[in-house]
Amino acid sequence: MHSPDQTLFLQLLLADPGVGQVKVGEDIPERCLHDWMSSAPREHVLAWVRPQSTAEVSALLRLCHAHRVPVVPQGGLTGLAGGAQPLPGCVLLSLERMKAIEDLDPAAASITVQAGATMQQVQEAAREQGLFFALDLGGRGSCTIGGNLSTNAGGNRVLRYGMARELLLGLEVVLADGTVLTQLNKMLKNNTGYDLKQLFVGSEGTLGVITRAVLRLHPQPRSSCTALCALDNYEAVLRLLAHAREHLGAQLSAFEMMWPDFYERMTAGLPHLTQPLPPGHGAYVLIEAQGTQPEQDQAHFEQVLADALEAGTVQDVVVAQSESDTARLWAVRDASGEFRAVFWPHVGFDVSVPTGELGRFVEDLKARLRARWQEADTVFFGHVGDANVHIGVKVCEGEQPEAEVEDLVYGAVRDWRGSISAEHGIGTLKRAHLHCSRSPEELALMRTLKAAMDPRGILNPGKVLGGESL
Amino acid sequence: MHSPDQTLFLQLLLADPGVGQVKVGEDIPERCLHDWMSSAPREHVLAWVRPQSTAEVSALLRLCHAHRVPVVPQGGLTGLAGGAQPLPGCVLLSLERMKAIEDLDPAAASITVQAGATMQQVQEAAREQGLFFALDLGGRGSCTIGGNLSTNAGGNRVLRYGMARELLLGLEVVLADGTVLTQLNKMLKNNTGYDLKQLFVGSEGTLGVITRAVLRLHPQPRSSCTALCALDNYEAVLRLLAHAREHLGAQLSAFEMMWPDFYERMTAGLPHLTQPLPPGHGAYVLIEAQGTQPEQDQAHFEQVLADALEAGTVQDVVVAQSESDTARLWAVRDASGEFRAVFWPHVGFDVSVPTGELGRFVEDLKARLRARWQEADTVFFGHVGDANVHIGVKVCEGEQPEAEVEDLVYGAVRDWRGSISAEHGIGTLKRAHLHCSRSPEELALMRTLKAAMDPRGILNPGKVLGGESL
Repeated sequence: MHSPDQTLFLQLLLADPGVGQVKVGEDIPERCLHDWMSSAPREHVLAWVRPQSTAEVSALLRLCHAHRVPVVPQGGLTGLAGGAQPLPGCVLLSLERMKAIEDLDPAAASITVQAGATMQQVQEAAREQGLFFALDLGGRGSCTIGGNLSTNAGGNRVLRYGMARELLLGLEVVLADGTVLTQLNKMLKNNTGYDLKQLFVGSEGTLGVITRAVLRLHPQPRSSCTALCALDNYEAVLRLLAHAREHLGAQLSAFEMMWPDFYERMTAGLPHLTQPLPPGHGAYVLIEAQGTQPEQDQAHFEQVLADALEAGTVQDVVVAQSESDTARLWAVRDASGEFRAVFWPHVGFDVSVPTGELGRFVEDLKARLRARWQEADTVFFGHVGDANVHIGVKVCEGEQPEAEVEDLVYGAVRDWRGSISAEHGIGTLKRAHLHCSRSPEELALMRTLKAAMDPRGILNPGKVLGGESL
Repeated sequence: MHSPDQTLFLQLLLADPGVGQVKVGEDIPERCLHDWMSSAPREHVLAWVRPQSTAEVSALLRLCHAHRVPVVPQGGLTGLAGGAQPLPGCVLLSLERMKAIEDLDPAAASITVQAGATMQQVQEAAREQGLFFALDLGGRGSCTIGGNLSTNAGGNRVLRYGMARELLLGLEVVLADGTVLTQLNKMLKNNTGYDLKQLFVGSEGTLGVITRAVLRLHPQPRSSCTALCALDNYEAVLRLLAHAREHLGAQLSAFEMMWPDFYERMTAGLPHLTQPLPPGHGAYVLIEAQGTQPEQDQAHFEQVLADALEAGTVQDVVVAQSESDTARLWAVRDASGEFRAVFWPHVGFDVSVPTGELGRFVEDLKARLRARWQEADTVFFGHVGDANVHIGVKVCEGEQPEAEVEDLVYGAVRDWRGSISAEHGIGTLKRAHLHCSRSPEELALMRTLKAAMDPRGILNPGKVLGGESL
């Protein structure tokens, strides 16, 4: 049942030829009702709209703004924080028909794309021109550039290339009232007033809808070296990180740690995985370097690791000698996507704690969990070079006391002055804990910005700042 | 003469023990009345205040906010756009007593400093720990981190390490009403709501006063290779850039071009410079690579250049074989600071145009200038890998028709969809031309943000957005 206002809005929407394709009621497809972690009933959705151009996005927002109808932008629906979750009485704005690669400029090392282009599309377009789009994560085939930017996506090579934010040169965005802001900048240096595009990165569609972006490309790596190291403890991991930074410099492209509770469980429990190094060590690190001298880079990489072995920093190491070796080593780290098979149910976390303190944080968190739940079990793995650790917590068989576990974990993150969301965002699922990482003054300024840029509160309301009144 | 309101404010200020050291009238030192490019009479300045802590900055802003007194933050006074220029009836807020290096965290590869620390202080503190603070420019001994961030400073190695913005991990800032916003984040990944620190980078003190920052450090380069190349024309420069990106990858740390009008004039006219390559070529490029393998990097660098020579991309090349060679090559490029001696008077510019079009832009601009002033003379040099070119224009002997020259140059930049300020900022000196690079919609959003964050307009009023009412 729609209210009279909603009925009027729908009549206008369906009669408007300038907003893109509109579906209502039973024609709204099932797939847009949920993202990776959340879902909503079809009744929540007034309409599902798929514009084909920035002008259509603008017309849609103008109409929603006039009628105070909430708008939920949707990309590839692979988000892990509920940022694309439908809200009661909302219009779902899908960018899936805006997926053109508009321009690739080799001299500027930039690519201009519509927001609905997938990460993989952009990676492939760059590769065809001998260039490299460095952002990469498991959902590459489905996740879209608009979603990557809205959530400031990270992934495995942030250490070397930065988050989505660092790969953004220019942006086109539609504001709450339909105003189109176009700055498709291709230049590394451009200091002309406030850098407005930064506002839309990581704000999860609450300040504007991204329609186009200019992304930075890098030279295609000509060599890639990979190794898995076994170490005694986190102190040794920090020594290896310092050693790798010193001797691999800018070539160091990944430094991924697996705690034994992850490594041993995955390699023992997932039949498609090999066990490249024996269990029993205190820490496992996957290290990757990308360079430009295929002949020499491998020898240098092996020397750097041999030095670490000789110095006693590393206890054991296996260096990939082929592409299939590389795939085998990465498969262990990438098993994070499949570990539900061997560690379920659990409550999952994506947090950051400064790299130097991450080892002690992990021990402290384990102790806190076991003090509360004697049977508590955990897995820890992550991008240690970026200060980012992913955590799985299982405190009992069957349904987990999720809220209690979250309170405990986020409380520990707060005490270690960490971040409750390293790379997944806040969405709806973490907003109640945002105060653990941001001060009242910061939250107040966020609300000031939200109120100034979206005074009617129509843009993805209830996301990020949802717990509070605007 | 002060107004009654100003007299009352000064009484309160002088009586307040919590705002830092206060000087008024003749005690205000001459040096704070001008930055590199602008100045103001002493009568403009109500008081010069030097706090020693964030709490003192906060107390000062609270008082100024209550009395609607404009505040002009000042760092090293090396700015080139008039951003620190005193305004009528203002308080000058000098950060020069807040220059502590508070923390250097090798594991996080971060350094936490007060805003008044100089760039060189930070560079040296990092070097002592075997790390590298990558931001670098000529004013390193005087310019401060607060100023570097407020103007989003660039320099010579942006290609490899990014602008000041890309080197910023965490920030503490005092808002217009004295609210202290502290997020001294050390983590590469932290997606917890709006990334507020981005607002204060490049906004030239108009949205808040930076008091502390956490900066990202990189591994100290272990090798540095430098060469000067002579090429036929800009097309060849683009081919060399593509070749260098492909074969030097992340090691490519500078790609600096000098047009012949710069190179020939500087090497002939400045007696302390050698002429490493003969005149008569169409373009000169200084190229630098930083790596981690001192023994092998030089050989690889020379091979990359030999290949470019053999392919006909480069006509002549001189590769530095010693530190004094390197200094000699860089001295030519760095003569930009001294070229007043051989090219004066002139009107100077710092603009960006997408790298692929920069060569044609330069030719078009020369043609436009000569169509208007038959005798127009120019020098062009810059960070071509960053899309950034610096320009000197001399259209006659004696005083230049500055406003007319600016209109012509900025008009050309607008037509080529470039940026009227690549790395210097807008300040007071470029605000009238800001519309050449930013749309009415962008300017409107900037004003919305300014009004929301500084409703009384006390923070560096008239800078950046000064031409317009708030």
